[in-house]
Amino acid sequence: MLIRPLEASDRKAVQAMLAGCGAFSEEEVTVALEIFDSGEMAHFGAEVEGILCGYVCLEPVALTRSTWHVYWLCVDASCQRRGVATALMRQAAEFARSKGGERLVVETSGRLDYERARRFYERVGFRQVGRIADYYKPGDDCVYYCKLLD
Amino acid sequence: MLIRPLEASDRKAVQAMLAGCGAFSEEEVTVALEIFDSGEMAHFGAEVEGILCGYVCLEPVALTRSTWHVYWLCVDASCQRRGVATALMRQAAEFARSKGGERLVVETSGRLDYERARRFYERVGFRQVGRIADYYKPGDDCVYYCKLLD
Repeated sequence: MLIRPLEASDRKAVQAMLAGCGAFSEEEVTVALEIFDSGEMAHFGAEVEGILCGYVCLEPVALTRSTWHVYWLCVDASCQRRGVATALMRQAAEFARSKGGERLVVETSGRLDYERARRFYERVGFRQVGRIADYYKPGDDCVYYCKLLD
Repeated sequence: MLIRPLEASDRKAVQAMLAGCGAFSEEEVTVALEIFDSGEMAHFGAEVEGILCGYVCLEPVALTRSTWHVYWLCVDASCQRRGVATALMRQAAEFARSKGGERLVVETSGRLDYERARRFYERVGFRQVGRIADYYKPGDDCVYYCKLLD
């Protein structure tokens, strides 16, 4: 597996990964592509056998000294359960750390079909720090996680 | 007290309120003015005897159906303890409600000198829903609050 920064020319692959992940609504895919196009966040992709099959994006949180927000983590369904998300999150943590980051924050859904995502965050060192009921929509809570970097 | 939408011509007054509030760092004032200049969020001001002495700004949270984020609430020190913040928050709640909003979310500091701000949020119906240690900087936690609109 090769982890590398994404470039503008990877846009089609990003779109394919978002669609292939199966977790995101059309609106979420649109927002993720807007974020990619803006060039404002750091994006890293994972290549398996030369094909991009997942990516992560993150940025430092304004008005904080050393907190980074991981906005998007996406792995194509065909490549799941192969350690891609773990490798991407390790890269995100190392990148933030290299820029002085001391913690990563993620927001994810409390829905039943996000159970695997939440377990993933806990497995790679995140701890639940908050929850807002019905945040995304009725029955769809926001769960906040934080991971300390060392 | 008159509550009204802020306009571009109120910029100097916004800058004066941010400085006069006494709660914000230079960096926070800069970010608050960038938000004001962007025109992307709803801003409401409170006039007392014809002079703007506080303002609030908020926007709907992307990818949520009915969650609004209150980003900034600022009252000039000379006008505090006169119900200005309460009136501004009531306006924020009514405005969000009129647009289909069902909850307001705020993030504030867990520092001792923000105790009065946190008590204010609780008094006007917010409930603490999360906390991230050292979020802003060492010793400066982020506390998440949510208020249901009805």
